Amino acid sequence: MTLIDNLNWRHATKAYDPTKKVSQENIGKIVEAARLAPTSSGLQPFRIAVVADQAIKDQLAEGAFNPECMRECSHVLVFAAWDEYTDERIDAIYNKTTDDRDLPRGRFDRYTDMIKGLYASQTKEDHVIHAAKQAYIAFGLALAQAAELRIDSTPAEGFDNAVVDRVLDLPGQGLRSVLVLYVGYRDAERDWLAPMKKVRNETAEFVLNY
Amino acid sequence: MTLIDNLNWRHATKAYDPTKKVSQENIGKIVEAARLAPTSSGLQPFRIAVVADQAIKDQLAEGAFNPECMRECSHVLVFAAWDEYTDERIDAIYNKTTDDRDLPRGRFDRYTDMIKGLYASQTKEDHVIHAAKQAYIAFGLALAQAAELRIDSTPAEGFDNAVVDRVLDLPGQGLRSVLVLYVGYRDAERDWLAPMKKVRNETAEFVLNY
Repeated sequence: MTLIDNLNWRHATKAYDPTKKVSQENIGKIVEAARLAPTSSGLQPFRIAVVADQAIKDQLAEGAFNPECMRECSHVLVFAAWDEYTDERIDAIYNKTTDDRDLPRGRFDRYTDMIKGLYASQTKEDHVIHAAKQAYIAFGLALAQAAELRIDSTPAEGFDNAVVDRVLDLPGQGLRSVLVLYVGYRDAERDWLAPMKKVRNETAEFVLNY
Repeated sequence: MTLIDNLNWRHATKAYDPTKKVSQENIGKIVEAARLAPTSSGLQPFRIAVVADQAIKDQLAEGAFNPECMRECSHVLVFAAWDEYTDERIDAIYNKTTDDRDLPRGRFDRYTDMIKGLYASQTKEDHVIHAAKQAYIAFGLALAQAAELRIDSTPAEGFDNAVVDRVLDLPGQGLRSVLVLYVGYRDAERDWLAPMKKVRNETAEFVLNY
């Protein structure tokens, strides 16, 4: 099956069968697709919190737009962005880059000095927005990977960030919640969106040709 | 090949062979993957400008971080976000949704009234940030689709938005440039990144388990 087949297959699942669990192997593949996503300057300024524990899922459901999905899906994947870009964080990634490539540390200093200067000129709020955007790239790849495996998922911005941050102690790890992906297997009877036609802008309107 | 195989295959191509062009059929598939991306409330608040014209690519290169890529790639795909969320834009999508699904118009009024109220409480700058984030989801899917077709691409935020907006007249269409994807076939001799190992955070660091 092609990516386009997989994207046509998926939809934002509205109800999950709480008895069906996604295997650890498949959760690993979903996370791996997100890990391989490209990010600005290769900084990967986000992490994924994988929540399997029912008691924690129940706590996260407080204030969620679809609390049943949060409680009843197999795993909740919380995409959490860096709360700021710092010289230390940038150096850590670039030291790993040069080490992994058998290059001398400092090989990319001219570039990293440039991006450090750029981020230093911005506010922390700018940083969070920029880091969050990178997480959105990975988010699309994670749900495409779930679809390839015929695992249902629901992309969601509708949750209480303060609750999720507190329950997962994300600020204590230098992170802020930005996106949630519910993952599991649909409850066909309650998943009202499943039989409906996927609606998108027509290609002729979506694409501007030059 | 799986999505993970395709993501491992791809890299941010640093130089293109200007004599090799991507077929219209394959450009169509790359755009289609982006068109199928999920977006917040299904609003699809972005468009893709597909630039094949050499003179226009040359103009867009002004101020780009990688002007050679802009000039020498086969096609430049500019992801452009809505400059604001308006009641009219929301109604247009939901009227299409109900029409496409043979439902009465207004079927989702309670929901659309809610999101209209939400957006009305935000600034236009908030709108652009939110719309841009949705484009990032589609952006990841577009580059995954290119990779599935073994077409090279380069994701880029490093360009002069003012130049791109002006050359493509995006503000005149209610849009603002947010991302560029260079698409084409690598020039192996000049693409210095191609032989280098892909570097990502280790899974044990990338994933937080709960």
